[in-house]
Amino acid sequence: MYFPSWMRQLYRGLSAQPAWASPRRSLVLSPHRRLPEFSSFIARTNTCGELRSSHLGQEVTLCGWIQYRRQNIFLVLRDFHGLVQIVIPQDESAASVKKILCEAPVESVVQVSGTVVARPPGQENPKTEALRLQYRYLDLRSFQMQRNLRLRSQMVMRMREYLCNLHGFIDIETPTLFKKTPGGAKEFLVPSREPGKFYSLPQSPQQFKQLLMIGGFDRYFQVARCYRDEGSRPDRQPEFTQIDIEMSFVDQTGIQQLIEGLLQYSWPSDRGAVALPFPSMTFAEALATYGTDKPDTRFGMKIIDISNVFRNTEIGFLQDALSKPQGTVKAICVPGGAKYLKRKDIESIRKFAVDHFNQEVLPVFLKTSINWNSPVAELIMEEQRLEFIRLMQVQEDDVILLTAGEHQKACSLLGKLRLECADLLEKKGVVLRDPALFSFLWVVDFPLFLPKEDNPRELESAHHPFTAPHPSDIHLLYTEPEKVRSQHYDLVLNGSEIGGGSIRIHNAELQHYVLATLLKEDVKLLSHLLQALDYGAPPHGGIALGLDRLMCLVTGSPSIRDVIAFPKSFRGHDLMSSAPDCVPPEDLKPYHIQVSWPADSESEKNSLNLHQES
Amino acid sequence: MYFPSWMRQLYRGLSAQPAWASPRRSLVLSPHRRLPEFSSFIARTNTCGELRSSHLGQEVTLCGWIQYRRQNIFLVLRDFHGLVQIVIPQDESAASVKKILCEAPVESVVQVSGTVVARPPGQENPKTEALRLQYRYLDLRSFQMQRNLRLRSQMVMRMREYLCNLHGFIDIETPTLFKKTPGGAKEFLVPSREPGKFYSLPQSPQQFKQLLMIGGFDRYFQVARCYRDEGSRPDRQPEFTQIDIEMSFVDQTGIQQLIEGLLQYSWPSDRGAVALPFPSMTFAEALATYGTDKPDTRFGMKIIDISNVFRNTEIGFLQDALSKPQGTVKAICVPGGAKYLKRKDIESIRKFAVDHFNQEVLPVFLKTSINWNSPVAELIMEEQRLEFIRLMQVQEDDVILLTAGEHQKACSLLGKLRLECADLLEKKGVVLRDPALFSFLWVVDFPLFLPKEDNPRELESAHHPFTAPHPSDIHLLYTEPEKVRSQHYDLVLNGSEIGGGSIRIHNAELQHYVLATLLKEDVKLLSHLLQALDYGAPPHGGIALGLDRLMCLVTGSPSIRDVIAFPKSFRGHDLMSSAPDCVPPEDLKPYHIQVSWPADSESEKNSLNLHQES
Repeated sequence: MYFPSWMRQLYRGLSAQPAWASPRRSLVLSPHRRLPEFSSFIARTNTCGELRSSHLGQEVTLCGWIQYRRQNIFLVLRDFHGLVQIVIPQDESAASVKKILCEAPVESVVQVSGTVVARPPGQENPKTEALRLQYRYLDLRSFQMQRNLRLRSQMVMRMREYLCNLHGFIDIETPTLFKKTPGGAKEFLVPSREPGKFYSLPQSPQQFKQLLMIGGFDRYFQVARCYRDEGSRPDRQPEFTQIDIEMSFVDQTGIQQLIEGLLQYSWPSDRGAVALPFPSMTFAEALATYGTDKPDTRFGMKIIDISNVFRNTEIGFLQDALSKPQGTVKAICVPGGAKYLKRKDIESIRKFAVDHFNQEVLPVFLKTSINWNSPVAELIMEEQRLEFIRLMQVQEDDVILLTAGEHQKACSLLGKLRLECADLLEKKGVVLRDPALFSFLWVVDFPLFLPKEDNPRELESAHHPFTAPHPSDIHLLYTEPEKVRSQHYDLVLNGSEIGGGSIRIHNAELQHYVLATLLKEDVKLLSHLLQALDYGAPPHGGIALGLDRLMCLVTGSPSIRDVIAFPKSFRGHDLMSSAPDCVPPEDLKPYHIQVSWPADSESEKNSLNLHQES
Repeated sequence: MYFPSWMRQLYRGLSAQPAWASPRRSLVLSPHRRLPEFSSFIARTNTCGELRSSHLGQEVTLCGWIQYRRQNIFLVLRDFHGLVQIVIPQDESAASVKKILCEAPVESVVQVSGTVVARPPGQENPKTEALRLQYRYLDLRSFQMQRNLRLRSQMVMRMREYLCNLHGFIDIETPTLFKKTPGGAKEFLVPSREPGKFYSLPQSPQQFKQLLMIGGFDRYFQVARCYRDEGSRPDRQPEFTQIDIEMSFVDQTGIQQLIEGLLQYSWPSDRGAVALPFPSMTFAEALATYGTDKPDTRFGMKIIDISNVFRNTEIGFLQDALSKPQGTVKAICVPGGAKYLKRKDIESIRKFAVDHFNQEVLPVFLKTSINWNSPVAELIMEEQRLEFIRLMQVQEDDVILLTAGEHQKACSLLGKLRLECADLLEKKGVVLRDPALFSFLWVVDFPLFLPKEDNPRELESAHHPFTAPHPSDIHLLYTEPEKVRSQHYDLVLNGSEIGGGSIRIHNAELQHYVLATLLKEDVKLLSHLLQALDYGAPPHGGIALGLDRLMCLVTGSPSIRDVIAFPKSFRGHDLMSSAPDCVPPEDLKPYHIQVSWPADSESEKNSLNLHQES
């Protein structure tokens, strides 16, 4: 965290008044796993930005600046993480505290201890939610928000210069009042004035950008607002922004080079240079090596297949696993794990594996003296042991996490544990993921289809139904479609997917076959696209970069809310204006809709009516 | 209209085949008053783009290129105005026509005559609407659409350079899922997953841009998507784009200079230079001189007050008018009117005045020999006549249109007639409004409030409730609010409003007084803004330019649909994908809404159910 010079001066210039109590040393850990521990080593227990309903009733100590004060009843305390409302005690016994809090000038630095309570009744937002969002216009004054939003504007402007001025792209706006797409269950609806007819807010301009290629705009881009209704999801927003790009007469390499150039050109100069080209990895390789399709390649701990070491093992469960088709033994080596991981860490890792993957994980240590909970170690023969050490490149203080089972499941589990162990090691002060390092990676050759989750005998698109098959696999479409690889590509940065795209199907017949025969979709909903493809579509492809996520990584912010001026809460609320809000029935009439009140919401409905009548 | 060189070559290179019938000479006038007569002097009766349901049953002749042909049953004919579907006759008697139409290569030039029919049943869009919109991806290939959208992209990019790179503005995205604003009857609703709660799609980022000023972003801009549900309105779109700007510590002159510089910097070089500064006119002056708040200053025909000429008149109705408060006699001089306007033109002008303004208009000619329908001319004394001629600067062939009555009404009427006469004269070949001329004008000093239309004893905002009062009139707010002028300004180009903005109220108390006391609004809906103003709001102001309208004027397009990639029809439909569309009831459930079917829509509802069941 960086303090601007004026802030340090303010600290010196004002009288800093500690209030209430002496500092507490018991730390309340942040609920967000990836956040650094901003409260370690110092007096406070929490930052002003992190208090949530889960903290109700807890004793906390906060430090910060007095943002403002209202009628000597409450004040708002600010640090660089957010704002919190402090209730000024009014009883006689706390008169000295009250005097300090009421008399200290605004911007004074104070330390405050007290119990977290829910917001007093009678206020507009009855739930205890982040005050930062409610007083967003004040939060925007913080150095952090000013820096993030200014950087976002500059970086997008540089992207525009690269696309428009250097490479002849055309910025074209596409509609957001559109038609529901097949399978678009997450699309917001907008009632129209025609009974029973609705627009839908699209999840991306996918259809429009393809239609633009057919319409002869061969280099399109847009900083596009997209909408996705996913209900309550942390760190997702119901509306988000993507850098949306489509080109004609291009192949996968062309798109990748364009994006690499785009990011290099627009990258903030103080974040270090972007080295080109980005490395590339197939989906199969990413899964086998990192257990995920979005590997964080800033650090090692790769998954190693050690099946061959144990071909002749006497250890029963390894024998069992290897005797099955796709059966494997795999492991990761946690550097310094024997030194840094406590018994309870290892226990929680084993529990996680059982709870989430129904899978055993064995810790193996080189030093047998600390061979907790690893009864199988004794059964490993010396020859296997040496080969094992060679393959895993184990050092004395390392710990190996070993599992056995079906390839994909074993990889996924170890991929999760790899990240879990990285978190644990970093909490102990080991730097694994340099925050100044930006590690880009292309992941390619995804499968075109996946078995449907609810009916594995049917197929669904791994990405979307307009993705072109890999040229080498096109013949398999008609015989073994589940084996077809796609021309989809993902761009990964530090373990987060920041973009994805594909070369598209530009042949109407092939598109019809994929939609109707393979995916069993209602083609009527896409008849305009199929017809358009029939009228001379150039080969084309594109990509979309998630701007919010990208800016979050560039600025090193813990949440995408820190790079959006007016974000919604994780339940999709605007806490400042309290949207969404009730609407009087007469406003629904022009749209021919009425509310279907659930049976248990009678009181809510009545309160709405009362409100309307008053 | 401009034909690119390749198109002329194509015309020469291909065999042009006339089909069906010989050319007709009877012109069907375009329903759009301002459109040039593209079909005058030539064989065709209409352009391909202009056929509407009002043409059903008419015999028309079209000329154009064969865009494509489907199964020898229909072909689509294209000219630079649009596309039309031609049904190829299948009966024996028309065999030779069929042969020509089926064998001519695509891009052949043909002339086609026939009767306009509704689209055949069984097609997705049963109403006869513009085929251009249905096959938008083909229309986008036209030179015109390519030029318009590429120019739009370039011009917006130049604006961004000016704002971001030259003047330090920050591009900040604001939400489009927001809360209904007071009086926002035209806002689309978006149901949320909470029963009875709705987001609303805002008509502008007005509140957000003010909150950004309070949040310390002192120079904001955004190319903002806005939404307005106005039902069926020609040449309006339910979603539209504005260049949205807000600044802190600025006055009206500052904003005006910024916009003048912005337009000069971004103006296409082949459209001539933009001269600065733009002229400025008060609202009162615009009304008195041009009868409108958006004067087209490319031509004269100004409204002249000739009340003083007739102070002692013997003409009864002028005496009557002048004896009333606000009573006036006003006139415009139509140059060459006596030469170009026919008796039926004058009659239609007089009828218009009676029908729309309940007002008499008298034509006055200098040559008494053609003094049609102007019985009062004889009553005008020689002295009055000379003063009248001097004031109106009448030439021999001119005609004066004279009216008497209340100031504002007389001005509004003459303002309309001024434009009507310009249309009539231009139809006769007189060039009044040079299409190469761009005449900008600021209109300032609007009233802050207007009497409510349905209850003239109450006030409503002339623009919006955040507009600051004129500094000279601020004391009148508490005594005669109806007399207060505002700090609102409009930017007018060639008689169209292309932008508007204001200096805002930045004082919470004053804003509360305006909302609660003067406008009687429910301030609870705006409590967040009032509270924000209370926490230190800088003085600020801004403006929004209507990008669609501006591009329409820059490109000389007849409709904003020509500068939008995927526009909606005038009924708000996307004719390509047929949005808005029916949604199965199960998709409404998560939003706790159901359709209230009007009593007369039983058949529609049933067909929907059938569709869902099939």
